[in-house]
Amino acid sequence: MRQAGRYLPEYNATRKKAGNFLALCKNPELACEVTLQPIDRYGLDAAILFSDILTIPDAFGLGLHFVEGEGPRFHKKIESEADVATLPSVQMAEALSYVGDAVALIRKTLNGRVPLIGFSGSPWTLACYMLSGGSSSDDFLMVRKWIYSRPELVLTLIDRIQGAVIDYCDMQVKAGAQTIMLFDSWGGLLADRAFDRFSLASLKTIVGALKQRHPATPVIVFVKGGGQWAERIASTGCDGIGLDWTTDLSAMRSKIGSRCTLQGNLDPAVLLGAPKHIEAEATKVVDSFGRLESGVGHVFNLGHGISQFTPIDNVSCLVEAVAKASRNQAR
Amino acid sequence: MRQAGRYLPEYNATRKKAGNFLALCKNPELACEVTLQPIDRYGLDAAILFSDILTIPDAFGLGLHFVEGEGPRFHKKIESEADVATLPSVQMAEALSYVGDAVALIRKTLNGRVPLIGFSGSPWTLACYMLSGGSSSDDFLMVRKWIYSRPELVLTLIDRIQGAVIDYCDMQVKAGAQTIMLFDSWGGLLADRAFDRFSLASLKTIVGALKQRHPATPVIVFVKGGGQWAERIASTGCDGIGLDWTTDLSAMRSKIGSRCTLQGNLDPAVLLGAPKHIEAEATKVVDSFGRLESGVGHVFNLGHGISQFTPIDNVSCLVEAVAKASRNQAR
Repeated sequence: MRQAGRYLPEYNATRKKAGNFLALCKNPELACEVTLQPIDRYGLDAAILFSDILTIPDAFGLGLHFVEGEGPRFHKKIESEADVATLPSVQMAEALSYVGDAVALIRKTLNGRVPLIGFSGSPWTLACYMLSGGSSSDDFLMVRKWIYSRPELVLTLIDRIQGAVIDYCDMQVKAGAQTIMLFDSWGGLLADRAFDRFSLASLKTIVGALKQRHPATPVIVFVKGGGQWAERIASTGCDGIGLDWTTDLSAMRSKIGSRCTLQGNLDPAVLLGAPKHIEAEATKVVDSFGRLESGVGHVFNLGHGISQFTPIDNVSCLVEAVAKASRNQAR
Repeated sequence: MRQAGRYLPEYNATRKKAGNFLALCKNPELACEVTLQPIDRYGLDAAILFSDILTIPDAFGLGLHFVEGEGPRFHKKIESEADVATLPSVQMAEALSYVGDAVALIRKTLNGRVPLIGFSGSPWTLACYMLSGGSSSDDFLMVRKWIYSRPELVLTLIDRIQGAVIDYCDMQVKAGAQTIMLFDSWGGLLADRAFDRFSLASLKTIVGALKQRHPATPVIVFVKGGGQWAERIASTGCDGIGLDWTTDLSAMRSKIGSRCTLQGNLDPAVLLGAPKHIEAEATKVVDSFGRLESGVGHVFNLGHGISQFTPIDNVSCLVEAVAKASRNQAR
């Protein structure tokens, strides 16, 4: 959702063809089509797989569906130890083969033009949805309640999801994904100590497992609201840290040094503004990271998903501004 | 909303008597009654004025009302420079005299039992509501759009609100409030650089004005999601920094030293859990700050508002746990 999406007319046309969002994710040909649309339109430097983080809970049989204007919902939710114990043993590589097929097809279609980034939701973030039965309007208060009343239930679930995420990402790399990004969209809701136990630990296990299986494939970890935990995130052994717009890249670079590439972090709301502001804000992001050095990289990105209300020309304006600011930095 | 609220049966009874939430805020006798309820029930060490941060926009004539299950709404919203220019010149001390009356009555009724904390919303946070016409389900995306397309409009509005906040807090202190707390509930939605311009600058002006008028009255600044900006918040000259539950008090104390007292920061979700977890988590918060020293204080508090689903006995359990952990620290 950082590239393709409802702001693009060609995306809406393909989505209509698919019938709905979930059908689009499950159709490799159409998922490939929408993955490439922003590359074709804007000439971006990398493609990101079009999919949804909730494919894993869906593969566990929870029955993912989308209610118009209300976000994702599941037919079943996890409410007890028994619900976790009776989650089916699912081979994610098989159950989610439609994602592997999409990855392979995208790589083939890209034919070396740009690299492809695959992704997965983090165990904590997926657990939030699975325990709530969908999205939340109160920062997953009831899930946070459970970490203080039934922590073992939550941890057992996270452990199950962790194995699924490893297999899912492994499958994506085998199918051709050249980087893996882990989205911990709700990590920032956790109390400081709880973050280590309920999210960071499983991120570390996943990064370790992926680096062991695919040492040459970079892994990026994004924790929304996780700026103050960046050093701990670096300690997972990830190659890149995705940052939301509330952090300052310059300060972050001082903290992280050459341990990780930084990815981010323009406020997506900037793209709703006027072109002169887009250019100014994009330049500030590039300049805040500063000059690239050997082994220290910056991947320009939005700090979160792109808004459906983004005018398409504003994205062109952003791409040009980033290219210009990067050239100026390199001088 | 850190003390009184719908989780208390006596609060619900008084609210029923008032008719609705806003009528309760506007009735000094009943506002006094609900302010004292948690003090009477739990023996807390300080009282916080029962009111709402949106009294200022209401006094500007926007027509505050509450839609059941949807949060606050205004009949009018700010959509243009003309709307800001035509905001009436309001003497907050007069327009919000019901708050001053409540403060005076609470002080009289408390009769020295515990100190009273008054409060106001921050200009940025109030501007979010005034520009949106109420609460938001998308992190005030349209307001964030405006800071990148019509920054002068937003800044002009913030400037108007800033003056109102100063007069409002000044009135509360004159009426008897012994500490002022500024709530920047939505500061954490701002991009790093934007926070300085759109929120921190006005907080600094307000703190400066209050310290000039009332040098002996402590001012606490709370920015939800502002943990990574704590040093900048300290630079406003405030006496205390309120922290949400995502920050570690030990690390924060190392950063801030003796410049500010720290206030916080238990996740309100802990209060929905089991007593043994409440005791454990409260103790961790007390211990994470560590031993008090001369001139370096910790005010135990929730990291955000108390949930309406909190069992009343859990709050007793928390109060006892904090007292016990504090005694153990003092040994």
